[in-house]
Amino acid sequence: MAEVKLYHWEPNANSGKPMLALVEKGVPFASHYINMLEFDQHQPEYLAVNPQGTIPAMFHGTRILTESTAIMEYVDEAFDGPALMPSDARDRWRIRWWMKFMDQWLGPSFSMIGWCTFVGPSLAHKSPEEREAMIARIPLPERRVAWRKAMFAEFGEEELAESKRRIALGVRMIEEELGKRAYIGSNQYSLADINIFNSTYMLPVGNPELTSPELTPNLWRWLKTVYRRPAVQRTWAMGSGRFTDRFNAIMGEFA
Amino acid sequence: MAEVKLYHWEPNANSGKPMLALVEKGVPFASHYINMLEFDQHQPEYLAVNPQGTIPAMFHGTRILTESTAIMEYVDEAFDGPALMPSDARDRWRIRWWMKFMDQWLGPSFSMIGWCTFVGPSLAHKSPEEREAMIARIPLPERRVAWRKAMFAEFGEEELAESKRRIALGVRMIEEELGKRAYIGSNQYSLADINIFNSTYMLPVGNPELTSPELTPNLWRWLKTVYRRPAVQRTWAMGSGRFTDRFNAIMGEFA
Repeated sequence: MAEVKLYHWEPNANSGKPMLALVEKGVPFASHYINMLEFDQHQPEYLAVNPQGTIPAMFHGTRILTESTAIMEYVDEAFDGPALMPSDARDRWRIRWWMKFMDQWLGPSFSMIGWCTFVGPSLAHKSPEEREAMIARIPLPERRVAWRKAMFAEFGEEELAESKRRIALGVRMIEEELGKRAYIGSNQYSLADINIFNSTYMLPVGNPELTSPELTPNLWRWLKTVYRRPAVQRTWAMGSGRFTDRFNAIMGEFA
Repeated sequence: MAEVKLYHWEPNANSGKPMLALVEKGVPFASHYINMLEFDQHQPEYLAVNPQGTIPAMFHGTRILTESTAIMEYVDEAFDGPALMPSDARDRWRIRWWMKFMDQWLGPSFSMIGWCTFVGPSLAHKSPEEREAMIARIPLPERRVAWRKAMFAEFGEEELAESKRRIALGVRMIEEELGKRAYIGSNQYSLADINIFNSTYMLPVGNPELTSPELTPNLWRWLKTVYRRPAVQRTWAMGSGRFTDRFNAIMGEFA
């Protein structure tokens, strides 16, 4: 069987999507940790793998695959193991609706807030010259714009307010969805749950004003169910430890 | 068999995706033309169908589906007729990669230029008060921002330059892809071709500086092949006639 190699950062947002999909399917893979905060993804070694310098990227034998949601659909279709998509066409449509919603509409807002509150400050110890040199190595111009804003705290008030609006609304929409069915988009655990869990698993500590057993009982029930999955625990144990304390603190509450 | 009803504007960008997918599959459907330039999509009749006020939307029996690319995957999976996705997992991944590329990265740039050069001027005869009233009826705040920019010609120089950069680069990337294989993402006609044709079919008249038999021989060959498909001609005949002259002018060249 062709070997699987995954280049990823923490199990989080985009990197966590193929990681968790592979673990759920029971597909063994070689893990290559890319330290995003040291910009390893823009170093020549990684650009030889993915010239766009985005993570994650996956090799299956000599095949290279990028774009986390499209990789997940590949993983579900190319390997044996439990199905991560239901068979009903309308459930599948709903799952794709939610993945698009997260990837295109809500996810970028989570990223912007993450960049402001976590990524930017993590890089503040570097001199402006070092930061400029890091930016100069980024292959995609639009990513240079975003990273510059993150590194020099240049996000505008209006765009931050729009991100906060989307997060508050997005949490309410997910809560409503999970009042209708057991999982996101269908009654079985699927790629939509993996996708959305990767961006929402820290809500209980990061946004307790939006997410609690009282405010969002359905989301809380779903988070608890997903946290308890053995594959989720195995996947989060593969991170560098950066988010482990927070994961474990929430897990402690849900265990 | 449950009836299919499609609410759509012209066969173009998003509306054309489910239209053409249905015609390719041979699925009969009731067509409801929504005049986007009169903002029919924000009138109570349509908001009762899709509260977000985005087009297209499709009913299959009592099921309502939105988001054009996700609808196409549904159409391919829920109905008989020729398969619009190949069976190989890597081809399917590549097709999803290209659809994401168009929907999230390149498509919004085509839209911005279209709004500036076509939609904005089409609405210029309306008084500022009428335009304000039209904006006030838009349900999604982020769409209000975009429509306001279109109606009052408020797009910034920087964002327009970025859109033009993406279109020029996107055309080169599509040309390169079609140098590798017969269709976008695989060697068979698929949802990726439908998706990308809907945003690129006017390039020969709209952007002759980017697209010509000399500059982009592979893209030209592909456009010609897709234009000649009977389903494409039937679908474009379903529009209001707004783009018919341009379609026919290019078709004349390819016939």
